[in-house]
Amino acid sequence: MSVEKCGVAIIGFGNIGSGAAELLKANKERITQSAGREVELKYILDVRFPEDSEFKPLFISDFNIIENDPDVNVVVETIGGTRFAYDFTKRALSAGKSVVTSNKELVAVYGHELLTLAKENNVNYLFEASVGGGIPILRPISQCLAANEITEIYGILNGTTNYILTKMSEGQSYEQALKTAQELGYAEPDPTADISGKDTCRKICILADLAFGRHIDPDEVSVTGIDGVKDAVTPDGKVKLIGRAKKLDDGRIMIRVAPEVIANDHMLSCVENANNGIVVKGNAVGEVLFYGQGAGKMPTASAVVADVIDCVKHTNARKWLYWSDGEGVQLVSENVS
Amino acid sequence: MSVEKCGVAIIGFGNIGSGAAELLKANKERITQSAGREVELKYILDVRFPEDSEFKPLFISDFNIIENDPDVNVVVETIGGTRFAYDFTKRALSAGKSVVTSNKELVAVYGHELLTLAKENNVNYLFEASVGGGIPILRPISQCLAANEITEIYGILNGTTNYILTKMSEGQSYEQALKTAQELGYAEPDPTADISGKDTCRKICILADLAFGRHIDPDEVSVTGIDGVKDAVTPDGKVKLIGRAKKLDDGRIMIRVAPEVIANDHMLSCVENANNGIVVKGNAVGEVLFYGQGAGKMPTASAVVADVIDCVKHTNARKWLYWSDGEGVQLVSENVS
Repeated sequence: MSVEKCGVAIIGFGNIGSGAAELLKANKERITQSAGREVELKYILDVRFPEDSEFKPLFISDFNIIENDPDVNVVVETIGGTRFAYDFTKRALSAGKSVVTSNKELVAVYGHELLTLAKENNVNYLFEASVGGGIPILRPISQCLAANEITEIYGILNGTTNYILTKMSEGQSYEQALKTAQELGYAEPDPTADISGKDTCRKICILADLAFGRHIDPDEVSVTGIDGVKDAVTPDGKVKLIGRAKKLDDGRIMIRVAPEVIANDHMLSCVENANNGIVVKGNAVGEVLFYGQGAGKMPTASAVVADVIDCVKHTNARKWLYWSDGEGVQLVSENVS
Repeated sequence: MSVEKCGVAIIGFGNIGSGAAELLKANKERITQSAGREVELKYILDVRFPEDSEFKPLFISDFNIIENDPDVNVVVETIGGTRFAYDFTKRALSAGKSVVTSNKELVAVYGHELLTLAKENNVNYLFEASVGGGIPILRPISQCLAANEITEIYGILNGTTNYILTKMSEGQSYEQALKTAQELGYAEPDPTADISGKDTCRKICILADLAFGRHIDPDEVSVTGIDGVKDAVTPDGKVKLIGRAKKLDDGRIMIRVAPEVIANDHMLSCVENANNGIVVKGNAVGEVLFYGQGAGKMPTASAVVADVIDCVKHTNARKWLYWSDGEGVQLVSENVS
């Protein structure tokens, strides 16, 4: 095994960023073995830090340090949102560093642009953690189902709303269930992005882009949230908030986010509480489903660090794992919805 | 895109082999795009063939032709069993050709030896289709969950027995259910390998090997089949045939195959009919589940061809996808059960 280390910087030390730091430390042996060489966390960038953190020696607040350190090979962007994350991601890629992110908002809106920039700079931009938390989904679609024409992807992509609908199916009112979700930390104090379906929409757009090679602006998708749901159980099945992307016979892509009644004998009706379940339909494989915790600190960190490992493995043999495989055929951006 | 073609030979033109041939043809455009260059089916080897096959011009019966053709880069072994498959696989690997297989018996017994031979010859030996049919499972474990210490894998790994148990839960007797399964082609005329749990055992041994890096001889595992099951539904949940591999605190691996009662609120209790469901437990990700058709011609061909694509992609940049990643740390064979 090469003794050469691979340097990592984490930018954004919130829930996911600190989870990634902890995981890199806790599973160091396993990660080194998987990556083929040692992965060294060199810097953690944020504007404020917990005083008592074990990672204190790594804290910095100036992105120039990361940008100019040739020993940083991979940047983990866990800032969230598009403002600082967009700028830092562009600078990191331009400086020849691979970037890994859990930032679904950034990927849904700027994914194609950032992938193109990554390719131009011969580095990777990976975002497995942006959909389904730790559930393997993007890599299985792009690699394990590579022999299939993907015809449809649909599923429960937001744990907060699924938790609320589960509690409603058990007899709670919408207001009670939302309050419980907030008390447990599943829902934000301002739960609008989840409740409105916007979070689900970003994720189904990322999945559609990956499966069908077409960039769809989340703002152009028809979205109905769960705030209008009166009964989470109907005679025909359970109500679930479903993100759905389907390739129509004429080649167009249909995307929508709305509550749907899921029959009781469908696997998605078994996906309860804050879990996610994602169904991928291929013309050879039929329907396969991926299930697990779709959010949370350590599950999401699991996906982030798996992407870091992939970047480390491919530092010397550049390889684009998602759209840009082959000759980037799928990188063409067509706004069809 | 490179115009250089990649040559493929299929050995064994039964259900899965013919499915792979059909899929390579039907999804040619998608496969070329995923692989980065054209994948050309050059030969199909068997001892007898359907007279009216569209693939007739490719039929051969002499393995020397494949072995000596430098334009064959990948051999798809869909013969099954260990007799001819073992010999041909060794010859193909020794001749510098990557081998892809759906042959769980061969992988469970000779997997380590064949992987070592593949590594010595700088080629790949891939077997995603040997567990769970088309369900992505081996690659997600080895890549997407690479940041986790895997602590346990368990699930429904045999569609035939799950179909029988499902029908029993709906009121049929064991004998009735077995007969229905045979009529539908789910169960073989001699269903012993399925019913006895032997098929499940081979698959859980492959999964354990991949997750824990230890070769376990299927013959040394405690296996109980479903022929003793009286009631497929109990007050505590449904009876399912479960293969289970667990890493104990002292480092030993516990493996067993037996009918277990699965609580009604567990996702595996929703896995009905001939479907498979596999749960992987990691110390960061928690529990994730992979679900789909665990057998069948086209689903299994989907996994076979995905492995072919992976071989094609890595023909010039040799890379071992499973145990032998890194420095082959996990290739050490320790028989601990």
